[in-house]
Amino acid sequence: MHPEATITEIDNVVAEVEGKGWQTHISQGSGMTVIGLQGKGQPLDSFYIGQMPGVRDSMLVTAKFKLGSRVFRPEDTSFQIGDVTVGSDQFVVIGGPCSVESREQILEIAQAIKKSGAHMLRGGAFKPRTSPYSFQGMGEEGLKLLAEARELTGLPIVTEVMSPTKVSLVSIYADVLQVGARNMQNYDLLNAVGRAHKPVLLKRGMSATLADLLMAAEYILSHGNNRVMLCERGIRTFDNKYARNTFDVNGIAMLKEITHLPVIADPSHGVGVRRHVDAISLASVAVGADGLILETHPNPEKSISDGDQSLTLPQFDQLMGQVRAMAEAVDRTFPKI
Amino acid sequence: MHPEATITEIDNVVAEVEGKGWQTHISQGSGMTVIGLQGKGQPLDSFYIGQMPGVRDSMLVTAKFKLGSRVFRPEDTSFQIGDVTVGSDQFVVIGGPCSVESREQILEIAQAIKKSGAHMLRGGAFKPRTSPYSFQGMGEEGLKLLAEARELTGLPIVTEVMSPTKVSLVSIYADVLQVGARNMQNYDLLNAVGRAHKPVLLKRGMSATLADLLMAAEYILSHGNNRVMLCERGIRTFDNKYARNTFDVNGIAMLKEITHLPVIADPSHGVGVRRHVDAISLASVAVGADGLILETHPNPEKSISDGDQSLTLPQFDQLMGQVRAMAEAVDRTFPKI
Amino acid sequence: MHPEATITEIDNVVAEVEGKGWQTHISQGSGMTVIGLQGKGQPLDSFYIGQMPGVRDSMLVTAKFKLGSRVFRPEDTSFQIGDVTVGSDQFVVIGGPCSVESREQILEIAQAIKKSGAHMLRGGAFKPRTSPYSFQGMGEEGLKLLAEARELTGLPIVTEVMSPTKVSLVSIYADVLQVGARNMQNYDLLNAVGRAHKPVLLKRGMSATLADLLMAAEYILSHGNNRVMLCERGIRTFDNKYARNTFDVNGIAMLKEITHLPVIADPSHGVGVRRHVDAISLASVAVGADGLILETHPNPEKSISDGDQSLTLPQFDQLMGQVRAMAEAVDRTFPKI
Amino acid sequence: MHPEATITEIDNVVAEVEGKGWQTHISQGSGMTVIGLQGKGQPLDSFYIGQMPGVRDSMLVTAKFKLGSRVFRPEDTSFQIGDVTVGSDQFVVIGGPCSVESREQILEIAQAIKKSGAHMLRGGAFKPRTSPYSFQGMGEEGLKLLAEARELTGLPIVTEVMSPTKVSLVSIYADVLQVGARNMQNYDLLNAVGRAHKPVLLKRGMSATLADLLMAAEYILSHGNNRVMLCERGIRTFDNKYARNTFDVNGIAMLKEITHLPVIADPSHGVGVRRHVDAISLASVAVGADGLILETHPNPEKSISDGDQSLTLPQFDQLMGQVRAMAEAVDRTFPKI
Repeated sequence: MHPEATITEIDNVVAEVEGKGWQTHISQGSGMTVIGLQGKGQPLDSFYIGQMPGVRDSMLVTAKFKLGSRVFRPEDTSFQIGDVTVGSDQFVVIGGPCSVESREQILEIAQAIKKSGAHMLRGGAFKPRTSPYSFQGMGEEGLKLLAEARELTGLPIVTEVMSPTKVSLVSIYADVLQVGARNMQNYDLLNAVGRAHKPVLLKRGMSATLADLLMAAEYILSHGNNRVMLCERGIRTFDNKYARNTFDVNGIAMLKEITHLPVIADPSHGVGVRRHVDAISLASVAVGADGLILETHPNPEKSISDGDQSLTLPQFDQLMGQVRAMAEAVDRTFPKI
Repeated sequence: MHPEATITEIDNVVAEVEGKGWQTHISQGSGMTVIGLQGKGQPLDSFYIGQMPGVRDSMLVTAKFKLGSRVFRPEDTSFQIGDVTVGSDQFVVIGGPCSVESREQILEIAQAIKKSGAHMLRGGAFKPRTSPYSFQGMGEEGLKLLAEARELTGLPIVTEVMSPTKVSLVSIYADVLQVGARNMQNYDLLNAVGRAHKPVLLKRGMSATLADLLMAAEYILSHGNNRVMLCERGIRTFDNKYARNTFDVNGIAMLKEITHLPVIADPSHGVGVRRHVDAISLASVAVGADGLILETHPNPEKSISDGDQSLTLPQFDQLMGQVRAMAEAVDRTFPKI
Repeated sequence: MHPEATITEIDNVVAEVEGKGWQTHISQGSGMTVIGLQGKGQPLDSFYIGQMPGVRDSMLVTAKFKLGSRVFRPEDTSFQIGDVTVGSDQFVVIGGPCSVESREQILEIAQAIKKSGAHMLRGGAFKPRTSPYSFQGMGEEGLKLLAEARELTGLPIVTEVMSPTKVSLVSIYADVLQVGARNMQNYDLLNAVGRAHKPVLLKRGMSATLADLLMAAEYILSHGNNRVMLCERGIRTFDNKYARNTFDVNGIAMLKEITHLPVIADPSHGVGVRRHVDAISLASVAVGADGLILETHPNPEKSISDGDQSLTLPQFDQLMGQVRAMAEAVDRTFPKI
Repeated sequence: MHPEATITEIDNVVAEVEGKGWQTHISQGSGMTVIGLQGKGQPLDSFYIGQMPGVRDSMLVTAKFKLGSRVFRPEDTSFQIGDVTVGSDQFVVIGGPCSVESREQILEIAQAIKKSGAHMLRGGAFKPRTSPYSFQGMGEEGLKLLAEARELTGLPIVTEVMSPTKVSLVSIYADVLQVGARNMQNYDLLNAVGRAHKPVLLKRGMSATLADLLMAAEYILSHGNNRVMLCERGIRTFDNKYARNTFDVNGIAMLKEITHLPVIADPSHGVGVRRHVDAISLASVAVGADGLILETHPNPEKSISDGDQSLTLPQFDQLMGQVRAMAEAVDRTFPKI
């Protein structure tokens, strides 16, 4: 619609196309209103539509991902979580352990990372583990401990949900629902988090193309949940001798171009080796990511899971200083909360 | 245990280790009984155990996958589905459409493939689709049509279940529960099908290593459901210009060595191009697969999904003749039902 | 040209297009003559060309590979090496050690594989080794020993050439020049073997697409050397724990469709594990390869290179029996020489 | 040797081990002398060696790459090219076109990038092209034009050599010999550049592991040519829809740890899309690369090769400003020449 289109003109167009059996998605951006059509309505006369008052242009979006595409919405999507705005010029950091292991552990970490400048707390209560014989997480008890850590520090909680049946439970405690790499194409789960009223952190599957990731996001977006962060966490390639995964730094640059959704980098999984997490974090800031998610633990050697890639708390603190400087070097702010 | 160990001797060993807090899995094979231990019991005195009457040997199985390993069970696992025995010298073929589309469609296909010699009917009622805007399957209505096709032809039904909440429903109609490639690491689903009293066809994820696949199977096996078929369906590599995936024929040979579970090949997805499905099917028989799962449709061009890789019914019929001859060339029987 | 086009008509067309600055390649196949154009001539009036006497059709071949494409030459290319015809209905086997190690070794192997039914002898005299500190081959001395083995058994010699400066030397002794996977895009070498009057066995690079392989072949073909065999030897993927490479069985089926050149399978490198070479060999026959190249050694444990994947001589002998049976099952002959 | 070991003590150790048939490589670093042994000498008595005057420690280097390893030489290798020192705290930029196309083109580019702050000029005279029908470069004429550009601007010349027979010719004109990705395992070429008295820029093959790259460097180093720069230029993975390659940013971090050789990033090939070259360049600086090699062209749309990834001259100029700022943010200097 024209920037100066009136509400009535917009309503008339919506009424016209809905009358033909289409569903509409309204979005605002670049100072104008975009009306997106979905579903299986009757064929439309694009000339007639184009002549309606207030219409500036009509176009066919052929990409399979629609709601997540910049074609559909050119402006960056940004939304608030706690005191920060993801997807804005603010650079945000999520820190915490792979798994919640004990009350003492999670409270110590939460306080330490808060002091170092992190903006959210991560921690797994339900853990997807390759082996059925590995620790599967503390479950609801872990969620309660995360909530207690939020109480103590004010940091919003990011935690994984693995099953559609657990979305309600996890939503009681979490501020952000994480969908893990292994579940990126678990469509029932995507539908369930799409219906939840919580922001979602969607991790890229280890062999998912960018298009696959955007299609997975589309499941969530199609339920009207627009608060989706995409997360690059390394892909599987032929070379895994030194690094656990291949961190796809190109992917971050590409995603920032083709989608309006915020993009978070996960250097901990992306490189999988503690002493390289700092370098990959800085590269992620430099390439244009909107934030980082980092694993940290008071005693990584004794960590139940992912100890090899977790930073110690002093390492985390030191890295925060470097990240802040790097964020400023690329004209991002690093909010102090 | 010694081949000649008595029931009492076996019971004594089980009682001893369970008394130390271990869970036991008993399996028979090669004419002897193997007692597997799992869980977190107290340390055992392997010398004392080794001296108990009837014990032949004790060993530490360090592989992360245990129940699926040939170390744990050297003999092939075989089990009956309908009139065929999967994992035996019988070579079995599962045929059918990607999706159940209509009563007419599924009954026509079921009758045609039965006549061509297929042993089971596949067909999707719940479809995992990359796009939320694609056809998602007929749901329970599709399951009922599959059951009707079984009624008509006697062919057991193989169909996918995508969510733990649907396992009960699908189990009412299906003879084999299929877990799709995208859900290979959906652990709640694996646990749910592990608890179901149905054989499972577990597809390899598109970037899953063989070890990943065996660990996923371990989730199912750990619930006592031993009727698991593994399925190779092509992996993701750098070369996807001509073929949709890279069919990992090495993987089939390797799996037959490291696990006792039956291995099924899926050339339809493995190559993804109709006119090459026959060659890949023959290679699969030659390399030692225990069976094939093939997509076929009366009119692939009009198929709602996967039309490019579905065989026509006459092509399916012709391929059955070639598969039968190839099976005999490698000393397998091709049961007539 | 029409099947009944006269020599004069063909000559007229050639004269016409060469007069416009084009180079021509004449090939015979399917009972007709095809005139291919290359280079940078003046634009042609395709209507005028189409009206010339004897012309049946003119088409633009847009594929980057031209001479190797079935569009350019629909009929299989076949040529004689020793007593067998590669690319015909004959299935051919090349056997021998990774490296020529001694006179005794190569003569023993040559005699053994001849007796088992192999049609050519392979053996490396110049070895491309990942490490500069590994054995680099016997050089010309090795070539002489190969020639002596041919003298003794009548088996033609296949051996690798690594450098354009060595093509003349190797050509003195070899019947087939092998270009290794690491040199698949060593264009000076490709040009040099293209100018040699010897058949070439061109191995696919470990991350070369099929199109890359065909473009490499195009370098050889463009010098007028049409006796090129393509060789699938496994590609690099994320899964290399159990197998050394991922053998691309799809690639063989695809190559047989898009090119007229013979395709040889290399299961020794393709799977890289001795006890699986037989299964992959049979799969290669089943999928439509024109031949096999196999590593064999009297004492693989003591082999200087590639011992893990070399068959013992009795294993080679046994496999030959299976390959012969499998070849017959897919309507190929297995020539006795 | 001890930091205070005398020349005589060093000579004695060298004499001792050379007397046992070993070759020695002497390197200085961290204020001490390291004597490396290579070849096949007699077994050494490490206790006796350890007791010799001036010896501090003896160790077995089992890595296949030895001369390139930090175990062998802990200190960074740095060397001067023109007015800059590669591998030092100086961050260096090599710019120029994919191919030398004309005198006017190369002189214009050389002057422009010199003005923007680049330190060396790249340009291809011999071009490895996937297709034999593509432009293969201007050959020696191109080398002469590069030399003329150096005359004009003072920028050292980096240009590719594709064949061992051309190393002498290219060395007449070039300051740095580039070995391309496709030739990374062309061992005759590696040996030839190892014997040349010129620095070498060795590009990683598109499916080479880091270990493969270091083994290729080992060929060069083993001839005593220590002036080797390694170059990350993107690897081949399953995802190539949006980016031409997957730029392995992890690889840069890893290489800086395991080898003492300088590491150069090639964002032009690494991402392959002009509008993302800047973001990947900044990430390369941030992750710790020692320099960049960038393609630029006055008119990329009319470029004979690689136009899609070449920066325009104004884009190059703008990026130089950003790179300078980023280099300073990570405590590197950006020398002005």
